[in-house]
Amino acid sequence: MICMVDVHTPAAAGLSPSSSKPEERLAAGRTGYALDRQHVFHSWSAQKAIEPMTVVDAAGSWIWDGEGNRILDLASQLVFTNAGHKHPKIIAAIQEQAQRLCTVAPQHANDARSEAARLITELLPDDINHVFFTNGGADANEHAVRMARLHTGRRKVFSAYRSYHGGTQLAVNLTGDPRRIPNDDDAAVVHFLPAYPYRSYFSAETQEQESERALTHLRSMLLLEGPDQVAALILESVPGTAGIYVPPVGYMQGVRELCDEFGIVFIADEVMAGFGRTGKWFAFEHFGIEPDIVTFAKGVNSGYVPLGGVAMDDAVYNTFAEKPYPGGLTYSGHPLAAAAAVANIGAMREEQMVENAAALGQELIAPRLQQMLADHPSVGDVRGLGAFWAIELVRDQQTKEPLAPYGQTHPVMNQLVASAKSQGVLPFMNMNRLHICPPLNITTQDITFGLNVIDDVLSISDQHATP
Amino acid sequence: MICMVDVHTPAAAGLSPSSSKPEERLAAGRTGYALDRQHVFHSWSAQKAIEPMTVVDAAGSWIWDGEGNRILDLASQLVFTNAGHKHPKIIAAIQEQAQRLCTVAPQHANDARSEAARLITELLPDDINHVFFTNGGADANEHAVRMARLHTGRRKVFSAYRSYHGGTQLAVNLTGDPRRIPNDDDAAVVHFLPAYPYRSYFSAETQEQESERALTHLRSMLLLEGPDQVAALILESVPGTAGIYVPPVGYMQGVRELCDEFGIVFIADEVMAGFGRTGKWFAFEHFGIEPDIVTFAKGVNSGYVPLGGVAMDDAVYNTFAEKPYPGGLTYSGHPLAAAAAVANIGAMREEQMVENAAALGQELIAPRLQQMLADHPSVGDVRGLGAFWAIELVRDQQTKEPLAPYGQTHPVMNQLVASAKSQGVLPFMNMNRLHICPPLNITTQDITFGLNVIDDVLSISDQHATP
Ligand SMILES: Cc1ncc(COP(=O)(O)O)c(C=O)c1O
Ligand SMILES: Cc1ncc(COP(=O)(O)O)c(C=O)c1O
Repeated sequence: MICMVDVHTPAAAGLSPSSSKPEERLAAGRTGYALDRQHVFHSWSAQKAIEPMTVVDAAGSWIWDGEGNRILDLASQLVFTNAGHKHPKIIAAIQEQAQRLCTVAPQHANDARSEAARLITELLPDDINHVFFTNGGADANEHAVRMARLHTGRRKVFSAYRSYHGGTQLAVNLTGDPRRIPNDDDAAVVHFLPAYPYRSYFSAETQEQESERALTHLRSMLLLEGPDQVAALILESVPGTAGIYVPPVGYMQGVRELCDEFGIVFIADEVMAGFGRTGKWFAFEHFGIEPDIVTFAKGVNSGYVPLGGVAMDDAVYNTFAEKPYPGGLTYSGHPLAAAAAVANIGAMREEQMVENAAALGQELIAPRLQQMLADHPSVGDVRGLGAFWAIELVRDQQTKEPLAPYGQTHPVMNQLVASAKSQGVLPFMNMNRLHICPPLNITTQDITFGLNVIDDVLSISDQHATP
Repeated sequence: MICMVDVHTPAAAGLSPSSSKPEERLAAGRTGYALDRQHVFHSWSAQKAIEPMTVVDAAGSWIWDGEGNRILDLASQLVFTNAGHKHPKIIAAIQEQAQRLCTVAPQHANDARSEAARLITELLPDDINHVFFTNGGADANEHAVRMARLHTGRRKVFSAYRSYHGGTQLAVNLTGDPRRIPNDDDAAVVHFLPAYPYRSYFSAETQEQESERALTHLRSMLLLEGPDQVAALILESVPGTAGIYVPPVGYMQGVRELCDEFGIVFIADEVMAGFGRTGKWFAFEHFGIEPDIVTFAKGVNSGYVPLGGVAMDDAVYNTFAEKPYPGGLTYSGHPLAAAAAVANIGAMREEQMVENAAALGQELIAPRLQQMLADHPSVGDVRGLGAFWAIELVRDQQTKEPLAPYGQTHPVMNQLVASAKSQGVLPFMNMNRLHICPPLNITTQDITFGLNVIDDVLSISDQHATP
């Protein structure tokens, strides 16, 4: 039995209306859309090829588009509204901090920032005691790499293919998905092949083989690149945008051991997987390992105010105890963002959202997706943890030929999403995958509704698959 | 006569108490400080060498430290609280937007974001019509360079020495101050010598000579590097952290012409100088030129919520009309940050803060600093515009030997700041300079008080200067 905690948020009510009036929402939608097309430049897009959906209001797991439709947000926007939209405790904290003090320069100290740092380090392993705050995930990874380089005195960084680490220049070079390619640079980043059991790069047939061979591959690459040149290895604890592929048993331990053997700083990118997403506070906890540096953003305050950060262990911290760290940013430890983090972590604890996410995954999402795998010839693989799941679509379950080629999309994928949307459900789409990443406190009723719709629209992709 | 607009903010009242109680502020100071030292990693610092001042509350141009002292903030924190602290209109807008909708993913459209983009482009030249929002100044510059590279198909970027462009890897490589050096990289950035009349790199004796020779130098560098390899030239319209040195007449026009001649994208970094700081909305307006790309952050919403952005002209925009822009970030166009920008720009207009800044500079700060130059042997140069001023300290007005060597600080500089602070005034300090950058709406009374204290503490540096 799934034991959803009774949360006191609009998410719990599920169908509760938002605070704004319908006619206000329609007006906001109209002007919002027109001005967007005139003046807003969008991420990762051909600007004239897009017709963005206008989002004018939200509550819990639901959003309202500019045409008056209420849609279940199975993407948590970009996998960040972990506590759902409009959580009253986070809103109240933002409003209160706005009245107390919005902003302070990073060289000063401020109690909201201090408390956020205390709470975050409390959730992390014992020897991770300090946080360098940033504005998001990309700059967190940029600074993590810089710390590792200066800590080790080495320059190269190892990063996996099929990964995403952010959009700034170094972060996009760390990235191992096709978005790196138009930005390729001389950033001293070496990409290795990840453990990805469903499409093994190592012809592995079991999880054990995959783990072992992926580690052998990584070890070979390290030896050939010169392990004493390698400052850091950065890895999403569970790779997110690139496919929510949970590492096989033994893999993360093996990576940790390789880092120890060669004195390499292990950076766990928990920007998407952290803060309860996988049913534990941090995804690396599933694997019984401790990274040297943990980067985070998104779920730390459910995206209510831009915030990211680098949590580092004492060894890294001590490198910069007497010697200046050559990096910084104007809004490091922004009080408004920090106050939202404090409230978010508080609400997640009080309302047991992390436990919820674990139960949700195990007892509700996993069995239901397994059933879809059995029922739909176009479903090649389902995988995930907690509130973090992928459905990989194929033309043939045997050959595993993807429905959309790597790095591309396919009209059928867009049809799937459009059909789901017309039924009031929004999944996250990437290449040949649908991701199911609801708020951690989504109700049983809402996730069931969402999965029913996903189940339904898979009949569209089934038409393109060998029965 | 200076015509300060009667603003309805705590800044206007000047001495008005903050909203919190004194004992609350002391308690927040104590825990804030202790936890900061345990858990917060600070920008640009040796972590155990710092004793940050705790800031627990603020109002207008004033802050309260954790020991109960009220201090006049002549640094506007890090030169970003352009509208002063706790402006009631910005607080109200944040509180209202927090209730309406804090956050939306960047692929959607949202009316708060759209309106911010409309307002910002309205303030810019006619052919700058689109904004790509970021979280701060560094990522704005990173993306501006990427756009320029893809727009031109070239890779090299020209940037000035004595500049600051941010802390992420590419941005810190664009930077031309000593903070770049420990981060030096293969970022295809070429540094040129700026026009800096007070310490001419070209042995110029007049402003005209400086302008002409600096342009000849830049032209030579471009020709020697291969101008058809150069994607962009990035320049602070008035370089800020590196010394608030206003370019001499003709220089910016000359740079614009060189960029036109060689098809180079001219990026004006207005992160610090923009949004009224110099007494115009954007500092480039002083020079009668139009950049191709303008980057901004800080003053756009007075730092109440992290926000930055890239405003681009139609030519750059059109490069990404049909072809995807390969860059992005989770919080691009964050509604809470955008709502704060809308309110901030609205308040700046209604309360004529930009006009105030211009009058403040011309009628009050400039004559007073000129007097200090005459009175104090340790003052080598004073310069600035609007609410953006530098006092350069020397050991000898003839030799111009700086009080602190380039790239370093000196105990006397710390003494100056400590003495000012003990009298209730906080200037910004960098190397051998004090910067005076108050909120644009500081009252005549407050700025006069602040300048009196600065005048007073200069007697300390005078003891180290040839009379
Ligand atoms: C794993 C991971 N790292 C880093 C980032 C970059 O974060 P941001 O978009 O806040 O820069 C993301 C964003 O999706 C991410 O999923
Ligand atoms: C001119 C200039 N550009 C860029 C930046 C970097 O902005 P941020 O600290 O928000 O990354 C700054 C910050 O001081 C700046 O003054």
